Amino acid sequence: MNTVQFTAGTTSDGMLERDFTVAGIPGVLWSPASGPERAPLVLMGHGGGTHKKWPGMVGRARRLVADGGFHVAAVDAPGHGGRPRTPYDEQEIAALYRAREAGEPEGPIVVRYNARLAERAVPEWRATLDALQRLPEIGAEGPVGYFGLNMGTAIGVPFVATEPRITAAVLGVHWPDALAEAARRITVPVEFLIQWDDEHIPRSSGLALFDAFASTEKTLHANAGRHKELPRFEADSAVRFFTRHLHPSRTAAVPTA
Amino acid sequence: MNTVQFTAGTTSDGMLERDFTVAGIPGVLWSPASGPERAPLVLMGHGGGTHKKWPGMVGRARRLVADGGFHVAAVDAPGHGGRPRTPYDEQEIAALYRAREAGEPEGPIVVRYNARLAERAVPEWRATLDALQRLPEIGAEGPVGYFGLNMGTAIGVPFVATEPRITAAVLGVHWPDALAEAARRITVPVEFLIQWDDEHIPRSSGLALFDAFASTEKTLHANAGRHKELPRFEADSAVRFFTRHLHPSRTAAVPTA
Repeated sequence: MNTVQFTAGTTSDGMLERDFTVAGIPGVLWSPASGPERAPLVLMGHGGGTHKKWPGMVGRARRLVADGGFHVAAVDAPGHGGRPRTPYDEQEIAALYRAREAGEPEGPIVVRYNARLAERAVPEWRATLDALQRLPEIGAEGPVGYFGLNMGTAIGVPFVATEPRITAAVLGVHWPDALAEAARRITVPVEFLIQWDDEHIPRSSGLALFDAFASTEKTLHANAGRHKELPRFEADSAVRFFTRHLHPSRTAAVPTA
Repeated sequence: MNTVQFTAGTTSDGMLERDFTVAGIPGVLWSPASGPERAPLVLMGHGGGTHKKWPGMVGRARRLVADGGFHVAAVDAPGHGGRPRTPYDEQEIAALYRAREAGEPEGPIVVRYNARLAERAVPEWRATLDALQRLPEIGAEGPVGYFGLNMGTAIGVPFVATEPRITAAVLGVHWPDALAEAARRITVPVEFLIQWDDEHIPRSSGLALFDAFASTEKTLHANAGRHKELPRFEADSAVRFFTRHLHPSRTAAVPTA
């Protein structure tokens, strides 16, 4: 039985940050430094080429903890952060850089590489969630959210589609090619983000992936701007989305109209 | 010179509601019952067949006042609420009901009727804004927002396109046919709403109107659901949008990431 092994911990600005491993996978758990005994959990998947403590990840975690009172967990995806790359990882990363330098489309490489990574990452997320739910401050009964963009969506869509413990998800900024079929099996509330002027993902592809979700409650947020120009206020919107769906007792504290 | 003539006033739950007329046009001004001397103003346009105090209007006003600290003003559009209908109004409304009963598309009638209403309503909004800005609690220097969906967008797009005092707008749920040209002259931040399963407005039409805005900062919110199923949390999102753009000193009080 995998358990959470805490390896280090610090507290700043009311947020406790604890590094951990589960079955050798390095992760981090952010929590309110004080508060009720239990709180809902949000799992966060990072983007391609980054890692669990990328500044954008820490910023989102800080919002979720401070404004939503959540526990937030992230792990390094296979081949990312503190984890070794396989020869296949190296080969695909080299192909991606070659395409980028040649000005060729990145999409076909990202789509196929991320689909392979998802095959490795989904069981890891499941094992991590099993272990996290054994912590007394999280527990096995509470609702769980998933928040992941870019590669975090390539892994998140097949994960959410097959993991009934996830009851709300913020996803986006990826192609539908390898994901639309799994998206059609997702019925939980989804907030989905695209960039209206994305230079990598055709607008119609982003819209097609949003359209694929079977969820009766789903919202598309499309912002003017290029692939990497997602506005920071979307992190705030995600906090309110998870608060509405995972933490309704706190909704009174956050305006929801 | 048109001035605001207050005709009645009540206060409930911390919100002051004052009926007024400007040049004979009936309006309502909602304000915080207490607070700083001045606050930014949001103008709200109502939908077709409704009026300035439709429940949805009052609900949005209450959010904007309570959570944003705004003044909020609405007026009855021509032929709506307490205002007489012209023979042309009667003719178009009859045509709309005939189409509805026959199961024929409402779009062509709504588009042409609302475009004609906008020709009357835009100068009225301008005169109302002139008069409101002479009130000491509003003033002529502060930023002004516009929030109107459906017919409120048919009137709002030409209004915002030609009124430099409007510096941020929430619009949506209308066809691009008569509006795209004016939308291309709008450069202020826009939050634009569509319904993903709108039975009246084709999805591609909603997307085309969003695409037309020249604003570098624009966000599309597309929600699953039919024409009249706009989720109530979008009113909350509008409060935060206006707070970011019109009331940045309050932004610290509202999570924004």
